[in-house]
Amino acid sequence: MVHDDGVTTAEEPARRRGRRPAGEDTKTALLEAARAVFAESGYDGATVRTIAGRAGVDPAMVNHWFGGKEGLFAKAVLHVPFDLNEVVETVTAGGPDKLGENIVRTFLTRWDGAGGESFVALIRSVTTKPEAMQTLRTILVNRIFTDVVRTADSDRPELRAGLGATQMIGLGMARYVARIDPVASADIETLVAAVAPNLQRYLTGELDLPG
Amino acid sequence: MVHDDGVTTAEEPARRRGRRPAGEDTKTALLEAARAVFAESGYDGATVRTIAGRAGVDPAMVNHWFGGKEGLFAKAVLHVPFDLNEVVETVTAGGPDKLGENIVRTFLTRWDGAGGESFVALIRSVTTKPEAMQTLRTILVNRIFTDVVRTADSDRPELRAGLGATQMIGLGMARYVARIDPVASADIETLVAAVAPNLQRYLTGELDLPG
Repeated sequence: MVHDDGVTTAEEPARRRGRRPAGEDTKTALLEAARAVFAESGYDGATVRTIAGRAGVDPAMVNHWFGGKEGLFAKAVLHVPFDLNEVVETVTAGGPDKLGENIVRTFLTRWDGAGGESFVALIRSVTTKPEAMQTLRTILVNRIFTDVVRTADSDRPELRAGLGATQMIGLGMARYVARIDPVASADIETLVAAVAPNLQRYLTGELDLPG
Repeated sequence: MVHDDGVTTAEEPARRRGRRPAGEDTKTALLEAARAVFAESGYDGATVRTIAGRAGVDPAMVNHWFGGKEGLFAKAVLHVPFDLNEVVETVTAGGPDKLGENIVRTFLTRWDGAGGESFVALIRSVTTKPEAMQTLRTILVNRIFTDVVRTADSDRPELRAGLGATQMIGLGMARYVARIDPVASADIETLVAAVAPNLQRYLTGELDLPG
């Protein structure tokens, strides 16, 4: 058992002599095991139990740190610069009216911090590997956007989640992949001001759908 | 000279015995020559004169049909389902207040008609070939969006063009590449209603920029 040390957080170095490493070391071990098992067995064939066993870690840690198998794949294989279980909490913390602003700011801060090339690698990966695309779709829409939209109690949550995804994928493509100026070089707050109201409309506003 | 036949349109079969083929045949010859010359010389090394010469066509035809070298590259190599010189005219025909609606409807109609896989091929091409990306960026932003935004006489035309590009790239990615439902399966008018107001804000609305 590793998670008996309830106070060890992900940020704490947590290197103690004579006992199993916790915190970052366990996370790293899980990520390495995940990369190996996903490569060997594919996404569908890999199980959290196998990955955790390979890392010598309690399977519950996968949920604790990565929000399950999808989050582990996102982090280990797609190198998404956030954990699923914390990103939804972060962007919903300001309530429904701040969703647009919080999502745009969090997205840009994390990807800018990770280096734009990791977003390029993500797009290259999902456009060449159908399995990676399917997993990203599940993560982005079913896990992140749908969970987020549900906190706002809006109508048509699936459509709103998909529309939100169009804006954020396009923002990432323009800033990091196509490097379209001035979107590529603008400071984060300029883009938050420009983009957040549009994302907010998708998530909680009037969609004026026909029929 | 080929374009002495002023009444021949792109839609007309235009196969006549004993004279140089016009219309579709000339267009096809130019596209084939363009693919060969771009492959041999790269985008920067290729010239309209060389391509037209290879096709046995007056270089002026390249501007007439494709809006220049960029448009020819877009059509021949990237398989973009519209010609640069007509798409700006089409989407601006309704005036500045209809830009969002006309762009979303034209984009979806053309790419749905071309088959979503051609958009997937475009994205794969630009994420793996820097030259294709650079050319797409020039076409999409400098030619299409900037020309379009200028018809609306808005402030910050370059930023608005880039923001518009984020929305349209993301819409294409979600519908054709990631196939995120219900965006992937929605009928065009549902997406026009949902997306056009957001695009319209980017092109002519209040951006509320800081500072």
